[in-house]
Amino acid sequence: MPTPSAVAGRFTAVRSNSLSLAASLTPEDQQIQAFPYASPTKWHLAHTSWFFETFILRRWLPALAPRRSGYEHLFNSYYEGVGERFSRPHRGALSRPRLEEIHRFREEVDHGISELLRRVDEPELLDLMLLGIAHEEQHQELMLTDILANFSVSPVSPVWREQDPAASPVGPAPRWVPFGGGLHRVGHDGEGFAFDNEGPSHPVFVEDFALRNTLVTNAEVVAFIEDGGYETPSLWLSDGIAWVREHAVFAPRYWRRGSDRTWRQFTLYGERELDLAAPVTHISAYEADAIAAWLGGRLPTEHEWEIAARACGADASLARSAQDGPVLPRATAEGPGGLAGVFGEVWCWTRSAYAPYPGYRPPCGAVGEYNGKFMANQWVLRGGSCATAQAHSRVSYRNFFYLPERWQFTGLRLARC
Amino acid sequence: MPTPSAVAGRFTAVRSNSLSLAASLTPEDQQIQAFPYASPTKWHLAHTSWFFETFILRRWLPALAPRRSGYEHLFNSYYEGVGERFSRPHRGALSRPRLEEIHRFREEVDHGISELLRRVDEPELLDLMLLGIAHEEQHQELMLTDILANFSVSPVSPVWREQDPAASPVGPAPRWVPFGGGLHRVGHDGEGFAFDNEGPSHPVFVEDFALRNTLVTNAEVVAFIEDGGYETPSLWLSDGIAWVREHAVFAPRYWRRGSDRTWRQFTLYGERELDLAAPVTHISAYEADAIAAWLGGRLPTEHEWEIAARACGADASLARSAQDGPVLPRATAEGPGGLAGVFGEVWCWTRSAYAPYPGYRPPCGAVGEYNGKFMANQWVLRGGSCATAQAHSRVSYRNFFYLPERWQFTGLRLARC
Amino acid sequence: MPTPSAVAGRFTAVRSNSLSLAASLTPEDQQIQAFPYASPTKWHLAHTSWFFETFILRRWLPALAPRRSGYEHLFNSYYEGVGERFSRPHRGALSRPRLEEIHRFREEVDHGISELLRRVDEPELLDLMLLGIAHEEQHQELMLTDILANFSVSPVSPVWREQDPAASPVGPAPRWVPFGGGLHRVGHDGEGFAFDNEGPSHPVFVEDFALRNTLVTNAEVVAFIEDGGYETPSLWLSDGIAWVREHAVFAPRYWRRGSDRTWRQFTLYGERELDLAAPVTHISAYEADAIAAWLGGRLPTEHEWEIAARACGADASLARSAQDGPVLPRATAEGPGGLAGVFGEVWCWTRSAYAPYPGYRPPCGAVGEYNGKFMANQWVLRGGSCATAQAHSRVSYRNFFYLPERWQFTGLRLARC
Amino acid sequence: MPTPSAVAGRFTAVRSNSLSLAASLTPEDQQIQAFPYASPTKWHLAHTSWFFETFILRRWLPALAPRRSGYEHLFNSYYEGVGERFSRPHRGALSRPRLEEIHRFREEVDHGISELLRRVDEPELLDLMLLGIAHEEQHQELMLTDILANFSVSPVSPVWREQDPAASPVGPAPRWVPFGGGLHRVGHDGEGFAFDNEGPSHPVFVEDFALRNTLVTNAEVVAFIEDGGYETPSLWLSDGIAWVREHAVFAPRYWRRGSDRTWRQFTLYGERELDLAAPVTHISAYEADAIAAWLGGRLPTEHEWEIAARACGADASLARSAQDGPVLPRATAEGPGGLAGVFGEVWCWTRSAYAPYPGYRPPCGAVGEYNGKFMANQWVLRGGSCATAQAHSRVSYRNFFYLPERWQFTGLRLARC
Repeated sequence: MPTPSAVAGRFTAVRSNSLSLAASLTPEDQQIQAFPYASPTKWHLAHTSWFFETFILRRWLPALAPRRSGYEHLFNSYYEGVGERFSRPHRGALSRPRLEEIHRFREEVDHGISELLRRVDEPELLDLMLLGIAHEEQHQELMLTDILANFSVSPVSPVWREQDPAASPVGPAPRWVPFGGGLHRVGHDGEGFAFDNEGPSHPVFVEDFALRNTLVTNAEVVAFIEDGGYETPSLWLSDGIAWVREHAVFAPRYWRRGSDRTWRQFTLYGERELDLAAPVTHISAYEADAIAAWLGGRLPTEHEWEIAARACGADASLARSAQDGPVLPRATAEGPGGLAGVFGEVWCWTRSAYAPYPGYRPPCGAVGEYNGKFMANQWVLRGGSCATAQAHSRVSYRNFFYLPERWQFTGLRLARC
Repeated sequence: MPTPSAVAGRFTAVRSNSLSLAASLTPEDQQIQAFPYASPTKWHLAHTSWFFETFILRRWLPALAPRRSGYEHLFNSYYEGVGERFSRPHRGALSRPRLEEIHRFREEVDHGISELLRRVDEPELLDLMLLGIAHEEQHQELMLTDILANFSVSPVSPVWREQDPAASPVGPAPRWVPFGGGLHRVGHDGEGFAFDNEGPSHPVFVEDFALRNTLVTNAEVVAFIEDGGYETPSLWLSDGIAWVREHAVFAPRYWRRGSDRTWRQFTLYGERELDLAAPVTHISAYEADAIAAWLGGRLPTEHEWEIAARACGADASLARSAQDGPVLPRATAEGPGGLAGVFGEVWCWTRSAYAPYPGYRPPCGAVGEYNGKFMANQWVLRGGSCATAQAHSRVSYRNFFYLPERWQFTGLRLARC
Repeated sequence: MPTPSAVAGRFTAVRSNSLSLAASLTPEDQQIQAFPYASPTKWHLAHTSWFFETFILRRWLPALAPRRSGYEHLFNSYYEGVGERFSRPHRGALSRPRLEEIHRFREEVDHGISELLRRVDEPELLDLMLLGIAHEEQHQELMLTDILANFSVSPVSPVWREQDPAASPVGPAPRWVPFGGGLHRVGHDGEGFAFDNEGPSHPVFVEDFALRNTLVTNAEVVAFIEDGGYETPSLWLSDGIAWVREHAVFAPRYWRRGSDRTWRQFTLYGERELDLAAPVTHISAYEADAIAAWLGGRLPTEHEWEIAARACGADASLARSAQDGPVLPRATAEGPGGLAGVFGEVWCWTRSAYAPYPGYRPPCGAVGEYNGKFMANQWVLRGGSCATAQAHSRVSYRNFFYLPERWQFTGLRLARC
Repeated sequence: MPTPSAVAGRFTAVRSNSLSLAASLTPEDQQIQAFPYASPTKWHLAHTSWFFETFILRRWLPALAPRRSGYEHLFNSYYEGVGERFSRPHRGALSRPRLEEIHRFREEVDHGISELLRRVDEPELLDLMLLGIAHEEQHQELMLTDILANFSVSPVSPVWREQDPAASPVGPAPRWVPFGGGLHRVGHDGEGFAFDNEGPSHPVFVEDFALRNTLVTNAEVVAFIEDGGYETPSLWLSDGIAWVREHAVFAPRYWRRGSDRTWRQFTLYGERELDLAAPVTHISAYEADAIAAWLGGRLPTEHEWEIAARACGADASLARSAQDGPVLPRATAEGPGGLAGVFGEVWCWTRSAYAPYPGYRPPCGAVGEYNGKFMANQWVLRGGSCATAQAHSRVSYRNFFYLPERWQFTGLRLARC
């Protein structure tokens, strides 16, 4: 368990980082919401503060809880235990409170928490602080993916940051890296912070398998498209081909055809030439599954991914993240165990439905709603993306999204038996 | 035909008035759109300028047309002849151009138009200038009704202007004012500006009829509700009762029950006690039709309304408007011919479908799309509301909305044979 | 007022005719419902009997009312005053009561009514009998248009009757027939049966106008399509082009492209080569309006149509009907006043919204729901189609449908000023 | 591998059983489809025959394949590899071919297959025959669940068979039956017929667990409802409570409140008093999960279920089935290993997403679409219901449905760690 002052340090850093990520955006940019799931930047800034206020300040230092009228309702995301919530698709309609007011709210929460950490050092508090920090890191990633989605509808192609990142280097030649089957232990082992859904640690039996060293690239998906991949039902799950037909999907999200028919991609740096060497991103689980089939492989299970990452000693602390470089996935060199791009590029779809580990029980109270109640109709993603906070990557981390969702930095790595 | 300098004067006044109406709103307030039909204030400010640029500057003084990249697409409302338009429900997602940039755009258009009116005095230009001015007046009303709608979803009840208007005075006692039937001339007679849909002037035959002196009040609608009006199918059109059931309608839009079960109403000045003496507003044509039936009357036809208004010498130039007083309907004294509140309170639903007058032909080119193509599935409203620019009220004016729409200041006046 | 025995004769004839129309259909054919609006044949047979039972037998001869359990609920179409109704789109799911049981129900109602007409001769009863007969005639037309719709989804192209009707003769050369404006009387004048919505008879003022002698033909619509009519927004009402785009409409309903790109049409006699000389049918009001614009004309108002039909002495009693020949529209010779095909071919869309005539009041009680409550969002159609019972055609007859609806035999005749 | 004549015997029996199940239904009953997923009886009779024709006769004995025009299109369920399919929700609109014609089609297929089995004894043919027989058994269950759904919308409460089954006996007292964890083998071991999705057999590691001896009963669900279970979000998955709210779910499907507020249930024998001692049925996975939580347990995984069933020596051949007794779930005595009602009562929802077993590969060609492409967004159900053919129950059998689906005989058994 870290000390209160170490926690206070991490708290200050994460809070300041959220503001940095939004610094290049105008108040109007931070107001908009083009899709029900893509919340305004401003809302993320408020909601993450609401989390600290609601679950920590109100309990341990209520005198310093800002208690703004209406915030409990406006900035609750999905905690039924906390009360009624404002309609998610209408968050973009909340011009009040203004951004400046939300900045003030953040400052008051920051002040309260800092004060609290000077006074109290109960383990339960520190646990919840780590949860609040991890929660804010998650929303930092959402701030990036949501502003990308919200900007994407504009014909004037706004950019998050004025920058012109170079194209990705070319990655290593593809090859299969074998891993031995048998009984393996997976899940969080209890050291350091983890979400409740990462445990309990437990044995699983897997057969021998192999993963490809590199992530699937944009160039491979161009070839999939040119081979008629989106029109070939035998490559797809039944729900997948139905989704393709209903939404007339013909390429990863944010890919656009230029006037000369070349592929372009809308990014946080505006619309750019498609970066062929880079890992593909913004694909649904359906696309990932079909692309894997077309490439002669399959998606790994989440256990295979974790066993391989552990076997390779994949070190999340070396992951690139939104602070280091452009928020664009890149081809990287192979790590020590032979796998390239395990963390810091794209979230890898796995073939595993999001389900409780054996013996899992959500914590009591409203924070217990953090993970458990979402364990249906979603698949697990592993790794971490170029938009993930570095400290937020973990070998046991279980991200999860509905199969058609693709506004996150989602890609795939091939597996085979 | 007014002189160029008179037109220039009216242009300057109307342009400045649009900015006044928005002056109390923050850039974030001007960004939001909570419903597909309720455009952002900022969009109205840009679109009205786009109208002058597209239909006037580009033709008569292209050198001074701002020609901002993308604006043609972003700020076209519905003119197919001008090219593709940006999706209406997504206007609220356009954080760029920023409000300041739109202010600059307005200034450039203002400069161009002023310059143009110094150089050119062709009647066709002056005609189009009057159309552009009338168009901007229409959007002024929409700025008010749209911000009301957009604010209405917020649990923190924002206000357009900090003000606390007094309640309405009580109006005169209700009575029927009779009008003689026979052949009457209706429609615009050619003097002064009018929209194309107001002509040609033509004779119509009507039977004897009577209108009630006063508009239907909130108090009468409370009685309708208390008598189970919303649950009595025999009072309603078939489409009306289906609409009530589908949307669980139980009161005019913006009415809310207080915790003590008393009625409150959300207004541009926040949520207030329901003003019983005031004319009812924000009702659909279906509600207007059912309330009229319950009160033992019916909606007038648009011809009856116009014949009566002409007979009474109803003078639109005396109408209250958004500049004069609170943007809330009020009971008023009877005018000379016996009718109270003909202009300046609420748009009165009529029983007339919006259709072309005999011999009507829309003008050529894209401005021809202004009115004619909407002549289906809508009903005509007459009069003018507390949000209508005074200069915009006219005895021949034909407003039109779909029957379920009620985010405008819409009410009713009873008729009978 | 006809005598009871004359009414009894008409009753017997109309009842037997309903069975003839269904005679070629199997019990399974009479069961199906492919669209919410296209009721099963069997349901029509039951509903028309329910009408006589509910509004007549239960009142005048309750002892002979069959009073089958559940029928009141199952076979009520839209009479709120009679109680709850079974969901319209699920009528096709009612395998019970079986067809034979419905035949028995019809026989009992027939017996009851015949008995009643022997005992009672009150004018009110005879009035209601005439309404019931007209009601059954309406449903005879629906039986035909509904089975056409229901069969149209089947890839095995079922036919209503095994028959191979010859193609239409070519009609007279198109020309304009002028009519003088001024005050004219329209509406039912009180002699013979008419629906309540056809009165009161009243004067209207119209300008001079002309109608085309012939109905618009399939050949003209082929030319409209080849000229890109469905992709030219300037020809369409705004709601019309939106409807075209939303539903990807490219031709009248039931038109299909053969493998050689020639047009074919699905009819009650199966899929056939498109009959170019025949009047176009199965078009929406939107299509009628756009085709008229493309042909340089416009739709007539319902008053113009009636004035012209009266001026020509158009005689509905000479109309072809479902009993006479193939249920397919045909080009015909001009009648005495110069108009061809006034009755018996297609229902002509008019430009008139369906609204109450001045002084109209629906009758009291549940039968009052027959017409009045539908006077919103629909346009009037005039004439009568090849599926209309001959006795059901009338110069004052006002049919009405929603603008997008086109499963009836709907077409158009051009008007101009 | 069974002999050709053994297969021929099973074929004849299963084919005749399908007709028996439909024997009490009129042609009209067999025509209807009240929901997109609830196909007409007649369609099942045709589709199962189409399966034998398409995958067997056309390959091995094309001369005896009926080759009815259009059938390939009409009676293909979901095989993309076979070509275009007729729209599933419109199956109820296909009055042609008539039922008698489908009976003739069945006879020709029966004749062809019998002839074929006299001539050919290739293992691949026999394999496909067993698949076709299993396929028809599946559709026998669907015939029952679909006619139940289709009858359920009728206010006249039709019955499948005129019968008045006694209420369920009361089952044994509830208790937990423990099972030891560790490595266990699950999946089909290769003897006898199984679907591809049941293999390969493979080891899995599970923790110690316990299952309740009895299925959850209607009485327990009444208590759940009375305790406000449907209104308590903390009991539900997030998607589950959203489903409850969107569809206003308040009880298992087919439960109805009598006029005296007692619970009644619509069954294949009409509406009956709710049978409190019987296992609950017609619940979604969401309800199963919430009811389990409320009862202090959880759903088992599919591996736990199979391990327990194998440990108990649960013998599917003893299961009741649609041929034996009323198609209604019953409480039964405990079997040898302590579990009651393992087969023959309700399909038990498990907590396992439907996913491929390690090493699973679908067979080549169109039959490969049987199972694999559905492995997304569904959960596995185990056991077999009162509507399942006896020969169709197996300890390795993996049934699967979407989480909200509940028109099958679905229930639950509790697990705990």
